[in-house]
Amino acid sequence: MVKLDPSSGFLVLINTFTVDPAKADELLAVLSRATEERMRHMPGFISANLHLSGDKRYVANYAQWRSKEDLEAMMKNPNAQVHMREAAALAISFQPIYYDLRESHLAAGGHQGR
Amino acid sequence: MVKLDPSSGFLVLINTFTVDPAKADELLAVLSRATEERMRHMPGFISANLHLSGDKRYVANYAQWRSKEDLEAMMKNPNAQVHMREAAALAISFQPIYYDLRESHLAAGGHQGR
Repeated sequence: MVKLDPSSGFLVLINTFTVDPAKADELLAVLSRATEERMRHMPGFISANLHLSGDKRYVANYAQWRSKEDLEAMMKNPNAQVHMREAAALAISFQPIYYDLRESHLAAGGHQGR
Repeated sequence: MVKLDPSSGFLVLINTFTVDPAKADELLAVLSRATEERMRHMPGFISANLHLSGDKRYVANYAQWRSKEDLEAMMKNPNAQVHMREAAALAISFQPIYYDLRESHLAAGGHQGR
């Protein structure tokens, strides 16, 4: 289970890919394989969470890294770059943004939507 | 603690606000207050996670809702709309995208970045 915890100090990378809906599943598969085979073995990787929009026009990766330095080291790794180029080639565009998680709010009374 | 779990079936809303860095903290405060006072009391709300980019040009809300119907009911609620208009007025633009969480990958060997 992935936990979101502002006290963790993890860097959050949200990478939003705009994609032809006909290629969305293929992009998801490429990101999934890249994460399993490469990213999750790299120093500082915490988690990656792959999302598909209802209309299949967007794929989002919500990833946690220990630090910005770890993420930047990954991005300079030639083996990781092969995967990133493969994903980029399937997308119309992509926008990676680096965030800090500042606040996490839960449902009142712990009702969890029920 | 917020958990990301593809089997939950929750709808994920990632709303990315583009903002003047000078107004980023005010936007965060508005979103925080809206969540505490209004959103987290609404039916189907699970969690909201507020992020600020390192350069303060982006604020992202990663929110989980029980269903699309719950989220759409909130958006039609006049009290919630007051908060949404307040946030929108502080942003240059915003892009809400509805997602399903498809996969969650953790670090190999459970090393959690260490």
